[in-house]
Amino acid sequence: MERTFRLVVSCPDRVGIVAKVSNFLATYNGWITEASHHADPQAGWFFMRNEIKASSMPFELDNFRIAFEPIANEFGMKWHVEDSNKPKKVILLASKESHCLADLLHRYTDKELNAEIVAVVSNHTDLKRMVDWHNIPFHHVPVNKENKAEAFAEIGRLFGQYEVDVIVLARYMQILPADLCEQYSGQILNIHHSFLPSFAGARPYHQAYNRGVKLIGATCHYVTQDLDEGPIIDQDVIRVGHNHTIEDMVRLGRDVEKNVLARGLRYHLEDRVIVCENKTVVFS
Amino acid sequence: MERTFRLVVSCPDRVGIVAKVSNFLATYNGWITEASHHADPQAGWFFMRNEIKASSMPFELDNFRIAFEPIANEFGMKWHVEDSNKPKKVILLASKESHCLADLLHRYTDKELNAEIVAVVSNHTDLKRMVDWHNIPFHHVPVNKENKAEAFAEIGRLFGQYEVDVIVLARYMQILPADLCEQYSGQILNIHHSFLPSFAGARPYHQAYNRGVKLIGATCHYVTQDLDEGPIIDQDVIRVGHNHTIEDMVRLGRDVEKNVLARGLRYHLEDRVIVCENKTVVFS
Amino acid sequence: MERTFRLVVSCPDRVGIVAKVSNFLATYNGWITEASHHADPQAGWFFMRNEIKASSMPFELDNFRIAFEPIANEFGMKWHVEDSNKPKKVILLASKESHCLADLLHRYTDKELNAEIVAVVSNHTDLKRMVDWHNIPFHHVPVNKENKAEAFAEIGRLFGQYEVDVIVLARYMQILPADLCEQYSGQILNIHHSFLPSFAGARPYHQAYNRGVKLIGATCHYVTQDLDEGPIIDQDVIRVGHNHTIEDMVRLGRDVEKNVLARGLRYHLEDRVIVCENKTVVFS
Amino acid sequence: MERTFRLVVSCPDRVGIVAKVSNFLATYNGWITEASHHADPQAGWFFMRNEIKASSMPFELDNFRIAFEPIANEFGMKWHVEDSNKPKKVILLASKESHCLADLLHRYTDKELNAEIVAVVSNHTDLKRMVDWHNIPFHHVPVNKENKAEAFAEIGRLFGQYEVDVIVLARYMQILPADLCEQYSGQILNIHHSFLPSFAGARPYHQAYNRGVKLIGATCHYVTQDLDEGPIIDQDVIRVGHNHTIEDMVRLGRDVEKNVLARGLRYHLEDRVIVCENKTVVFS
Repeated sequence: MERTFRLVVSCPDRVGIVAKVSNFLATYNGWITEASHHADPQAGWFFMRNEIKASSMPFELDNFRIAFEPIANEFGMKWHVEDSNKPKKVILLASKESHCLADLLHRYTDKELNAEIVAVVSNHTDLKRMVDWHNIPFHHVPVNKENKAEAFAEIGRLFGQYEVDVIVLARYMQILPADLCEQYSGQILNIHHSFLPSFAGARPYHQAYNRGVKLIGATCHYVTQDLDEGPIIDQDVIRVGHNHTIEDMVRLGRDVEKNVLARGLRYHLEDRVIVCENKTVVFS
Repeated sequence: MERTFRLVVSCPDRVGIVAKVSNFLATYNGWITEASHHADPQAGWFFMRNEIKASSMPFELDNFRIAFEPIANEFGMKWHVEDSNKPKKVILLASKESHCLADLLHRYTDKELNAEIVAVVSNHTDLKRMVDWHNIPFHHVPVNKENKAEAFAEIGRLFGQYEVDVIVLARYMQILPADLCEQYSGQILNIHHSFLPSFAGARPYHQAYNRGVKLIGATCHYVTQDLDEGPIIDQDVIRVGHNHTIEDMVRLGRDVEKNVLARGLRYHLEDRVIVCENKTVVFS
Repeated sequence: MERTFRLVVSCPDRVGIVAKVSNFLATYNGWITEASHHADPQAGWFFMRNEIKASSMPFELDNFRIAFEPIANEFGMKWHVEDSNKPKKVILLASKESHCLADLLHRYTDKELNAEIVAVVSNHTDLKRMVDWHNIPFHHVPVNKENKAEAFAEIGRLFGQYEVDVIVLARYMQILPADLCEQYSGQILNIHHSFLPSFAGARPYHQAYNRGVKLIGATCHYVTQDLDEGPIIDQDVIRVGHNHTIEDMVRLGRDVEKNVLARGLRYHLEDRVIVCENKTVVFS
Repeated sequence: MERTFRLVVSCPDRVGIVAKVSNFLATYNGWITEASHHADPQAGWFFMRNEIKASSMPFELDNFRIAFEPIANEFGMKWHVEDSNKPKKVILLASKESHCLADLLHRYTDKELNAEIVAVVSNHTDLKRMVDWHNIPFHHVPVNKENKAEAFAEIGRLFGQYEVDVIVLARYMQILPADLCEQYSGQILNIHHSFLPSFAGARPYHQAYNRGVKLIGATCHYVTQDLDEGPIIDQDVIRVGHNHTIEDMVRLGRDVEKNVLARGLRYHLEDRVIVCENKTVVFS
């Protein structure tokens, strides 16, 4: 893939934003390979993502930032610009269930994810051998009622040590404490094994089975302090019927979970997601 | 379509049910064109539907019933047998939104539904002209806070007068009173414009928009006294994104509603649905 | 819906296109409500669609065109700009099958389509009563082996008389002659009842049944002189199984056909489709 | 999972088949946990699959077969009965692409597949390390223009040595010779990376890209001597658009391939598939 810069912007909507930004890029001969805009008339907010060939620009990101700053200020923009050649550092948290972890590790090894998986943390050791095989550091941090504060302090320390950009809860069955949720706001992705807002909380397939729904799903969302209430990045469903047991649903659901998590993570890694209040704009 | 008898059975599960029933049918040279079985190990319950060529049997339904009764009693069956040539009498309730009504009326005219639509009831007159064109009696029964009891008494009277087998709420925006729900239990189908149990109650597309879900859906279910809580017959979803307004969701949702309601109704008309507690077995 | 101008552009890709166009719009205080870009690196071609609030611009479309012309010339653009308040004139061609026609007419009556349906042409009279009810002129133009040239001359005359912008073959079972295909290139939409390129030509559901596929589909495409080979606008599928007869497939397929045709037509009516060689860019 | 016997039958359709078979089972107190029937009126053929609790039957499969033989003969049945506790022996053939192989191996390790993967054969060594990690024998059998006959003789020898029941081409890019196709007819599954019959043969994603389709798919089918023409077991699709490159299609398609192959294989392993001419009955 050719190296690109990704300029991601959101600001109050008004006339001239696109003109100003694209003028800026054209002034420096920036070759736009992909551009996405969205105006939310209800929120009065504007969102934009431009992907520009790095080789077409006369400077690197530090000077890009200096040059763009005045424009950003003029329009009151929240913004960031990223280098596609600088993969984000990702830490995966898992428990005993292997499917999401195995899927992400395979995509990683297969060069499908533009990221660096720096470590895996788990409260069990079941998946250690798989992680070892991929030559990724594995940290066993047991969590129980007594040691919760301590355990998550250790996990927070690992986040810091690895300087992580992204945290992925790959069927990690523990609830992150509020301080970590806040510190890494917009950087923690979870896969919930239901089509939210249906069946939040524990044992969603059991809930789905008992309600007799005809489709089950999975939801990739950012983690906030409100359990299963964070901004949704992606969702998908699969058809089930009266002949499916809970075990069948668990099995069928796994495939949906894997794909939805991988898709959501990909969007995030490519800076395609902008959070706005409790919703997301996803320039897929 | 060749004329068939549809034998629909549910009973506590045990050895020999299929043998007994199929023996019964074979004894009378009954030619089975379609057979569906389901055993629910959790509930310990067995479900069966057989479709038999009427011409292959030596008797009509009254004698069929007499001959089958002892077997049904032996196994403690809930059962019924239907004649495919005797279309069910259906009454449609609608309000102002035309899409579900228009869709069902077109399928009816197009001979897609094996039913007789005996009347349409509405609390508004907007759809009268459309119903008239299909030569179906239209009853305008206005409903407001003051006349509710009266209005639904009139509607109940119409159900009786038309000897309805099936009542379809085709985006009828009123809540049926408990006594009608009970009297016609298992005979009233509703289309709810969300993927239940998400977004029950009013304005589900607004709820979906505000939650930022990435799929919206519709649910066809039997009406019970608990609003939007009845047994689900069918559901489906469609993908939405940040660029869709509430109006877009309403529009996209209409296509899902139409198809899910038509499908659910079809299953019901063909005696493919068996209600078991708050869930359904659908032999689709 | 607020009145908008839709500026649709395609041209060889190079630096500065977006800047130039958005500058142009910003110069005149044009408020962009929706913007879509696409660069095709393989073809070296760039595509853009901007939707601008008409009330934000200081002139009407004639002067818009005069003002934009020099920019278009500079970049070698193919372009057009449309007024959302000027609905396109649509003529529908149908045969005996009613589902697509009924669906489009209902959407039209329901104000879902931003278009004016000026007439329906059919080689049969079966659907006349339905069209009459919608107060749309119905033209019966029988087509048989002997009168083909004559019949299509008459149909071409009707296209001219009604000054049509769009022609929709709503399960019209006749093949348009080459001269009409050419004259109305990019303006004729067809719905083919298979997932093209599978099962082009006659009786696609029979072909699908015989091949034993597990999904059947429909394709909305522009008509060219090569039967079922034109640029595809949209497609969709539905699951089938061994228990579905050809008749079932025909019935299930109807719902897919209706939705795919309506969706494709909507994209076209909103100037969201750009044809490039034998493919389409669809800014949905 | 409780141990079951799976009785799979097909025969010319006539009255009394179900009665005879279920009588047979009831005579021996066989507890049916799952029963599926299908009558194909066009072919005049009947299909049936019964799953019976092994513990409810008074004998093992050898005596089951002796007892059932006369019934089978009476109705001219093709039939087999299987023991769920006797997993089928599966050999996987792969090339360089890892996704299907990794997916199947993970499902295998995760106990999702009721099978014994006895070996992996590849014409390359790229995937050896992955296979080794799963403790499955890996055989490197290079194939080129010169050694084809020899190479496939070796592969056929391996099939024999491992006494394989099922052969899975997990993106194995070589064409099996006619004699192997014939010898293992109905036992070789392939995943083709298109929605067949569209884009048979080489480089289907390139074909799909060039045709401009809006959905891409994958097909799991039995291998016959006619390339990509064998009976289809399962298919699925995923939406693509003008913004997807061929590389994107390849990536998106991988997820469809994995799931469709896993699903098709599962059906086969559970004796849910009956081939009838060039089509399948799948009791899913």
